Amino acid sequence: MVTSSSSANIYPLSNYSFGSKEPKMEKDTSVADRLARMKVNYMKEGMRTSVEAILLVQEHNHPHILLLQIGNTFCKLPGGRLKPGENEIEGLKRKLTSKLGANNPGVVPDWQIGECVAVWWRPNFETTMYPYCPPHITKPKECKKLFLVHLSEREYFAVPKNLKLLAVPLFELYDNVQRYGPVISTIPQQLSRFHFNMVTQ
Amino acid sequence: MVTSSSSANIYPLSNYSFGSKEPKMEKDTSVADRLARMKVNYMKEGMRTSVEAILLVQEHNHPHILLLQIGNTFCKLPGGRLKPGENEIEGLKRKLTSKLGANNPGVVPDWQIGECVAVWWRPNFETTMYPYCPPHITKPKECKKLFLVHLSEREYFAVPKNLKLLAVPLFELYDNVQRYGPVISTIPQQLSRFHFNMVTQ
Repeated sequence: MVTSSSSANIYPLSNYSFGSKEPKMEKDTSVADRLARMKVNYMKEGMRTSVEAILLVQEHNHPHILLLQIGNTFCKLPGGRLKPGENEIEGLKRKLTSKLGANNPGVVPDWQIGECVAVWWRPNFETTMYPYCPPHITKPKECKKLFLVHLSEREYFAVPKNLKLLAVPLFELYDNVQRYGPVISTIPQQLSRFHFNMVTQ
Repeated sequence: MVTSSSSANIYPLSNYSFGSKEPKMEKDTSVADRLARMKVNYMKEGMRTSVEAILLVQEHNHPHILLLQIGNTFCKLPGGRLKPGENEIEGLKRKLTSKLGANNPGVVPDWQIGECVAVWWRPNFETTMYPYCPPHITKPKECKKLFLVHLSEREYFAVPKNLKLLAVPLFELYDNVQRYGPVISTIPQQLSRFHFNMVTQ
């Protein structure tokens, strides 16, 4: 029986340094394209499993989440689709390095993949996802898992030139489904059980 | 580093039996009364800590949460306020027995208090709560913790005559802040990381 709460250190945003690297273009240029590609992959490989990372930093003693912004409005967590049969921890490390690691393997962050904080299900080839597999759905099309990633005290991130990396405070995400969607806007609730140790230097 | 997901058995609603006992009246008859009493208690005892239980059963292979309904609309989780200095696990057991245990101590359920799934903060003597302590709030007025309680295969619950005990499916709670409020309507997201083993008999 696990009753103790989980804890994590959060370091200041200013501890981290940010450079840029070659663009990582989105594979799809529209939602319709994305759903069509999902369908093709499902026929070949079965249910899609994707993994995403919650990377935390602090500013003004409040936790912030690192989000990748595409264009002017759309934000996403770093991560992506696992290869068929790939281990989810190893797959998330691979995706994080592809999205945010320097091209020089010597300075790629030490990705410490921590607790699973949420699991979302896509019952159909549609954009809607649920935090449970809906009743009567025997063949969900995607399962997406969110993991807390424990960042080291200092790291270097290389951000693809076509993306922006934003540090967004929990109070901005909370109750803001219009701007961030149902998955990202409820991360504050999923993190609320953690005790965060705000390291100030 | 905890990376394995948590799991829990969920038994059918029909495994449990329900009786009734003497009414447990609400201490306050209005929100204004409640906030005024909160203020008085804060002056005497400091920050209020409350603990609430998520009790799960299954019907049609889908998890349901047991909620206490007061009157025709207002629903709450079983639980309540800790005494000053009281241990949160022991306090939650005491509150669950007071709300749902039979008067005969021999048949009180074996409350197995499990994982903390969410923590909510009340910054002011107001109804609004947040899943983090908002920046610049140094003296929050209440901290409310939600725990998953692992029910045994069979139990007897005694429901106070003025209340109804409802089993509400996750799909009814999800995205239904109008009916259930921000704390209860986001329980599906907080439970999504668990693997539930649906026991069918």
